[in-house]
Amino acid sequence: MIIVLRPDATSSQIDHIVEKTKEKGLTPFVTRGVERTIVGLIGDERILAAWDLENIPGVEKVLAVLKPFKLASLDFNPERTKIKIGRVIIGDTQVVVIAGPCAVESESQIIETAQKVKEAGAHMLRGGAFKPRTSPYSFQGLAEEGLKYLAKAREETGLPFVTEVMDTRDVALVNEYADVVQIGARNMQNFALLKEAGKYPRPVLLKRGLSNTMEELLMSAEYIMSEGNMQVMLCERGIRTFEKATRNTLDISAIPVLKDMTHLPIIVDPSHGGGKWKWVAPLSKAAIAAGCDGLIIEVHPNPEEAVSDGSQSLRPDKFQKVMEELKVIAEAIGRRL
Amino acid sequence: MIIVLRPDATSSQIDHIVEKTKEKGLTPFVTRGVERTIVGLIGDERILAAWDLENIPGVEKVLAVLKPFKLASLDFNPERTKIKIGRVIIGDTQVVVIAGPCAVESESQIIETAQKVKEAGAHMLRGGAFKPRTSPYSFQGLAEEGLKYLAKAREETGLPFVTEVMDTRDVALVNEYADVVQIGARNMQNFALLKEAGKYPRPVLLKRGLSNTMEELLMSAEYIMSEGNMQVMLCERGIRTFEKATRNTLDISAIPVLKDMTHLPIIVDPSHGGGKWKWVAPLSKAAIAAGCDGLIIEVHPNPEEAVSDGSQSLRPDKFQKVMEELKVIAEAIGRRL
Amino acid sequence: MIIVLRPDATSSQIDHIVEKTKEKGLTPFVTRGVERTIVGLIGDERILAAWDLENIPGVEKVLAVLKPFKLASLDFNPERTKIKIGRVIIGDTQVVVIAGPCAVESESQIIETAQKVKEAGAHMLRGGAFKPRTSPYSFQGLAEEGLKYLAKAREETGLPFVTEVMDTRDVALVNEYADVVQIGARNMQNFALLKEAGKYPRPVLLKRGLSNTMEELLMSAEYIMSEGNMQVMLCERGIRTFEKATRNTLDISAIPVLKDMTHLPIIVDPSHGGGKWKWVAPLSKAAIAAGCDGLIIEVHPNPEEAVSDGSQSLRPDKFQKVMEELKVIAEAIGRRL
Amino acid sequence: MIIVLRPDATSSQIDHIVEKTKEKGLTPFVTRGVERTIVGLIGDERILAAWDLENIPGVEKVLAVLKPFKLASLDFNPERTKIKIGRVIIGDTQVVVIAGPCAVESESQIIETAQKVKEAGAHMLRGGAFKPRTSPYSFQGLAEEGLKYLAKAREETGLPFVTEVMDTRDVALVNEYADVVQIGARNMQNFALLKEAGKYPRPVLLKRGLSNTMEELLMSAEYIMSEGNMQVMLCERGIRTFEKATRNTLDISAIPVLKDMTHLPIIVDPSHGGGKWKWVAPLSKAAIAAGCDGLIIEVHPNPEEAVSDGSQSLRPDKFQKVMEELKVIAEAIGRRL
Repeated sequence: MIIVLRPDATSSQIDHIVEKTKEKGLTPFVTRGVERTIVGLIGDERILAAWDLENIPGVEKVLAVLKPFKLASLDFNPERTKIKIGRVIIGDTQVVVIAGPCAVESESQIIETAQKVKEAGAHMLRGGAFKPRTSPYSFQGLAEEGLKYLAKAREETGLPFVTEVMDTRDVALVNEYADVVQIGARNMQNFALLKEAGKYPRPVLLKRGLSNTMEELLMSAEYIMSEGNMQVMLCERGIRTFEKATRNTLDISAIPVLKDMTHLPIIVDPSHGGGKWKWVAPLSKAAIAAGCDGLIIEVHPNPEEAVSDGSQSLRPDKFQKVMEELKVIAEAIGRRL
Repeated sequence: MIIVLRPDATSSQIDHIVEKTKEKGLTPFVTRGVERTIVGLIGDERILAAWDLENIPGVEKVLAVLKPFKLASLDFNPERTKIKIGRVIIGDTQVVVIAGPCAVESESQIIETAQKVKEAGAHMLRGGAFKPRTSPYSFQGLAEEGLKYLAKAREETGLPFVTEVMDTRDVALVNEYADVVQIGARNMQNFALLKEAGKYPRPVLLKRGLSNTMEELLMSAEYIMSEGNMQVMLCERGIRTFEKATRNTLDISAIPVLKDMTHLPIIVDPSHGGGKWKWVAPLSKAAIAAGCDGLIIEVHPNPEEAVSDGSQSLRPDKFQKVMEELKVIAEAIGRRL
Repeated sequence: MIIVLRPDATSSQIDHIVEKTKEKGLTPFVTRGVERTIVGLIGDERILAAWDLENIPGVEKVLAVLKPFKLASLDFNPERTKIKIGRVIIGDTQVVVIAGPCAVESESQIIETAQKVKEAGAHMLRGGAFKPRTSPYSFQGLAEEGLKYLAKAREETGLPFVTEVMDTRDVALVNEYADVVQIGARNMQNFALLKEAGKYPRPVLLKRGLSNTMEELLMSAEYIMSEGNMQVMLCERGIRTFEKATRNTLDISAIPVLKDMTHLPIIVDPSHGGGKWKWVAPLSKAAIAAGCDGLIIEVHPNPEEAVSDGSQSLRPDKFQKVMEELKVIAEAIGRRL
Repeated sequence: MIIVLRPDATSSQIDHIVEKTKEKGLTPFVTRGVERTIVGLIGDERILAAWDLENIPGVEKVLAVLKPFKLASLDFNPERTKIKIGRVIIGDTQVVVIAGPCAVESESQIIETAQKVKEAGAHMLRGGAFKPRTSPYSFQGLAEEGLKYLAKAREETGLPFVTEVMDTRDVALVNEYADVVQIGARNMQNFALLKEAGKYPRPVLLKRGLSNTMEELLMSAEYIMSEGNMQVMLCERGIRTFEKATRNTLDISAIPVLKDMTHLPIIVDPSHGGGKWKWVAPLSKAAIAAGCDGLIIEVHPNPEEAVSDGSQSLRPDKFQKVMEELKVIAEAIGRRL
């Protein structure tokens, strides 16, 4: 950590800073430049997380040298994490496709969809039993009933499933049913939920918040991991920008940049990323080409009648066509679907 | 709601849309323009919240006529909401000032701060017992112990207090102690938490999320209100933009714009808004001049040693000076502090 | 265009609106809903561009039915534009690669780079003679001397070149030398420059501004086209968001979305999009997979010594490797490099 | 400047960096931490503007110690700049109000408006003769004819005027007529225009770009100043964010933050900031309370018929009422209108 002092910082202010940093167990070294004096600190700057250096008189700004996350860092663990779910391995050469409806609406709907996406080549099923909806007047999900239908669909098709949890009180329940527990974008910094999910064994699919940086995403992964659950996969699902032509702006650069920062696998959600079914194919191809480890795609047997996110859901026949296109891209970069 | 059709929409697609909207209980009317045909719908379009019109073949886009919130709307309830907490009324002519440390650190710290902010003229106390921190390695709050210290500080000074709740499992507990329950920016769309807070009697201070629109803020208020708790105050605390010189960008226009959309009182947080204690005075003056109903300001007896957000906390003596400056502005616009 | 009236709009206000719109040559039709009355307008709403309907008493908001651009619209011209530059055709099955240094630094530097990128398979050369730099103290480009060196490099290699123009006074000069004239992101809404470029025959590569919407990009293309120059190619080069890990956020969804809005070819700049040479390969692959018509990539023989944007420039040997990887992706989607 | 090395940086890479920085005339000092080695550089880091350190092998990131602007910096010139225009002084105790229509439409329109705003207490006139419009089909301004009408209005009322220039070829002309030359938001990084305006004597009102940081705004001021024209005033006019309820988000914190960075006066544009006439009063009050030196407000005798930006223009009678409200705020903070 580097502390840049104000041009008018006094000697006694500098002495105070030097003393304080020593108290915290760090080794300070002072360098006087032409326009500014700086104090460098040797030691693990993360122990300063709770200490606001910028508030000390004479300080102009503080520059971090180290990243604030550890368990999630590629420096800390240079071997890439692989997550095994049944016969599926996420983070290996295969690009894993998770598909299904936004919300579980009925037993027949989810079973039918599961069969269709399996036929098309999907490796896992998705479906929401607890739905985060902007409006309290929108469909809120079937709760445990939905989880039961998902388990039924898994039984029928063999597809493991991922489903979202929104309430700390439901984490145990969702862990009982699901193969992977999803924490949604709106809960990316619901720290109580992150900690709770970290106490249970199921792998977690953690979605990036609408306006969260990659560093914050990794800090949230760190919350889960610091409770003991190391099986975290990160999901880029579009960020919020000024652009209005798409629901969100899919941050495709997050794939290589995160790969450079962390050993955790990266999943991309092209359905929320673009917000319209017709952008799913090009965005999925782009995501595979950029190196993602998996995709999570919304498929609905009858999008027009979907209770949520119908306009970004693919029909099963279109999904099948997309899968064929994706296979070619995966192979072109030496992976497989 | 207005449905704009694609230039190549067929008659049978138009007929299908007309039929479908009738099924939903709405009255459609079709108008053929030079370049586009549109279908207007008469009726409460909110019943369509669960139906994705954009997914119907032939549809280009859908334009909303009505706002998606109801209980929070000024149209629905033209009388401004006043929230009474002890002798304090939020939403009336007085500009209410809530002050205190970011986190409760010890009994003496919170009591000392409460006394100091009371002397300076604050009307309520703030202090976090449950702390949402980006890093799992940062101080996470004293939990119930912190609530007890806050209650003690209230006893000593008579100041009612607001404190944050982050977990649905803690809502009952926080309701037992606090006068106002805060839902923080990172939980603005934690819908489970919103619903839970809506079931309890304490007024809720709801902070705007870092990248949430005013409409979404009102939808989150609607979640609380639709559970029966009508005592919601909205808090603008800065939004996330590309600008790096400030921690957030305080959206000062949110004050008059929200006043035009809703009857709920508007509080401003200049401490998080700017992220540095030296911006608190100018931003607070601006907020009062723009018509806010209250301010929530971070004050710490020794910001340099604060366990969180020290750099945006005012020392008690500076806070007192700020209060004097604010009084003048409040009076200039016909209100009082 | 749909005019939504306020709930308290009076009959005389409605009559006034009806009359006014008739004066403008449009056909109004009034529909009374349960909560709102609306006035729809039949006719070319673009004639209303200069008329602020929202300012008329009784009006709550105005919803557009048509897009505000015409010449650039796919509706208007459903045949995709192909731009021929020497033997290169942009907008056809080939994915065109434009490569070269950020700035022309010397005759030998640009000739050496041109030879190297040609060997690697690039189809066109890039290089800045007029450089838009954030700081007045940074290198500002060699001006006409740079154009001469570019022409020399073209002579030596046969590669046509694109170069930026920043000043209306230089448009004629740049047209004399260049094969394609670039208008940079910071000048996307420099309307005087757009008009001037539209009066000359050279094709224009128009870069999207840092915070401009796709619609605004098309409006800027419309400026060039409405002066008579129909040979415009659009360039996505990253937009500005809150994310700090990358210089910009490459908006990959702009490729399919623009393809749906316009017949103009789409070029992607992965060098500025990511801001670091190591993101060029994954972002380029993603862009091709998403359907772009070309790439513009920064290559410098010695990036460490580059006078500008060195950190996002590839060395020639790395560029060659990237080209091989891109070829495979292009072929996988049925195109060629 | 601090160079943070990668954990795997080799000794020879470190030696190379040390040597290179010495060549550039800086004094390097190397410090080895537990997890990272850093190289600090003593000397004016601005001489490195053209050198991309991040591209040197072994470098992880580079942290700046100094600000990149000099002439505009408060460090460099601690005395606040005052700009004298006739009897008006911008940057002194008076809060200066500049008012008038978005565009000059006719001689009578601008003269009538000038008289009305003068009566209401405005100190300067505004009006556009060259109009930057998103659409080529919108009114583009009266050009020199408009400048003549503005000069006529000045003659009639004694009000000096500010008007925008968009083309380097028009800078001399606008300097002949105008008292202050405006460079608009869309041209904030039109560096050719900045330089040209810097060569002429008229003070420049420089508007912040829609997505430009305060640092970039100051770099653009530096462009003007480095050509010799030190009379620059900065204008905050709203930035682009995800919020859709307002045209832009007025960054009120820019006022105190810029005051802390620069000696140049700060003007606020509440008309573009909010995008609706009804937000002008609250935003203007907020801006004065936050410490701005002036306001630039759109006033039109008949906003409904305005050729541009009618919905954000005040009628003269409303403007008069706003002025009275603003006077009270200015006096409350010890200034005058």
